[in-house]
Amino acid sequence: MKTYKLWIYIIICRLLPETRFFGLKVALLRWCGAKIGANVRISSSARFFGGGELEIGDDVWIGTDNVIHPVSRAKVKIGNCCDLGPGVMILTGSHEIDPEGEHIAGEGTHADVEIGDGCWLGARSLILPGVKLGKKTIVAAGTVMDRPALETRCMYAGVPGRMKKRYAE
Amino acid sequence: MKTYKLWIYIIICRLLPETRFFGLKVALLRWCGAKIGANVRISSSARFFGGGELEIGDDVWIGTDNVIHPVSRAKVKIGNCCDLGPGVMILTGSHEIDPEGEHIAGEGTHADVEIGDGCWLGARSLILPGVKLGKKTIVAAGTVMDRPALETRCMYAGVPGRMKKRYAE
Amino acid sequence: MKTYKLWIYIIICRLLPETRFFGLKVALLRWCGAKIGANVRISSSARFFGGGELEIGDDVWIGTDNVIHPVSRAKVKIGNCCDLGPGVMILTGSHEIDPEGEHIAGEGTHADVEIGDGCWLGARSLILPGVKLGKKTIVAAGTVMDRPALETRCMYAGVPGRMKKRYAE
Repeated sequence: MKTYKLWIYIIICRLLPETRFFGLKVALLRWCGAKIGANVRISSSARFFGGGELEIGDDVWIGTDNVIHPVSRAKVKIGNCCDLGPGVMILTGSHEIDPEGEHIAGEGTHADVEIGDGCWLGARSLILPGVKLGKKTIVAAGTVMDRPALETRCMYAGVPGRMKKRYAE
Repeated sequence: MKTYKLWIYIIICRLLPETRFFGLKVALLRWCGAKIGANVRISSSARFFGGGELEIGDDVWIGTDNVIHPVSRAKVKIGNCCDLGPGVMILTGSHEIDPEGEHIAGEGTHADVEIGDGCWLGARSLILPGVKLGKKTIVAAGTVMDRPALETRCMYAGVPGRMKKRYAE
Repeated sequence: MKTYKLWIYIIICRLLPETRFFGLKVALLRWCGAKIGANVRISSSARFFGGGELEIGDDVWIGTDNVIHPVSRAKVKIGNCCDLGPGVMILTGSHEIDPEGEHIAGEGTHADVEIGDGCWLGARSLILPGVKLGKKTIVAAGTVMDRPALETRCMYAGVPGRMKKRYAE
């Protein structure tokens, strides 16, 4: 995406009510460089950052105060039929750990995030770089997902997130 | 509350300093449809959403960045003498879990939240739908409360929140 | 710091892109009363509150949505070469617990926070009043630090934060 266009996106969205003008927001986000499917509804307080790639499928809900940040050379892919609660944060940038450097946060790193079809990310969940979620994963409210969780129809909860339940089809 | 009025409330509050104009903010929030007691002090960055009912008692402090969201047909009731730290989130809307549907976040659900008199909700605590807190409950910073906790004078902490202490009167 | 100047700071920063105009933001924050070193880069959505003291060293990164709040008579000191991820919150004000009062959040209290040189505070970590961190501490994403952690080159994680790893030099 183009970061200066994302800045314009954020400024415009500040003037829009949370759950209106979905078509306008999708059009603006496509103009920023995101690839977005049909029937995607984005809350106005959600913000998108970064020069990387963003791909969102069809029938997706992006809740209030979401922060979705594909850094340069990284990608965030959100599948079809996903629901992101309020305050979800998806990150792709981190650092090497460098105990000998002046900053223990050493070289920048990046890793893609992929949210499978039908997932539900609960309120204020935090998705860290490199996380891939299997289809229909539930991430409970307040969970920090720090690693891939590829099995389908499971619920994760806690800090860090661990599997708590499996759902039969 | 009327959601379009809440939108106007949020826009106006963005121009106000955090801890001034308490009377104006209370008057505006009553105009939105909330029922608010005496001596309620609301930080300007706190936001209120939703078409449900909001009732706040007397002598209440609402901290910076609070998000309080009574969805339609749900109610958030905050008792007298409550103190909400920065970044508290109170939610009333959720979903059925639907492992067979395309969205595992199925039918919308809602449940009231009730915060008893004298409670203290710590920084960035998250109160989920259906939670009722007994009088003088302490919810520690960063706690996710996912179920009712009706005993009085107890402290809850963790993700999810569990009782850690009881205080004698 | 002067709280009415911080309010002007926040209003101006809302109009600035996240990762530009670092010199302007540092100059404004010094005008508010903060003591800030060289090569400090502050994201525009970071906010600073409170009438206390703020001191930031050299070569520091302050991420998006940070909230740093030195209340009156308290101080937040951030050392050199620190990196604060998105959504970090640093607090210095709290309350006595008063089970006999009408508010269980009793008398206001305050305690300084000190972040040692070279630390990395992960995304959405929460630093509570009285926390001191040794040099090159890593606070993992989503961690709530509720007590001093003075050993150097350690990683803390969880709610509340506990030591998970030591790094040799």
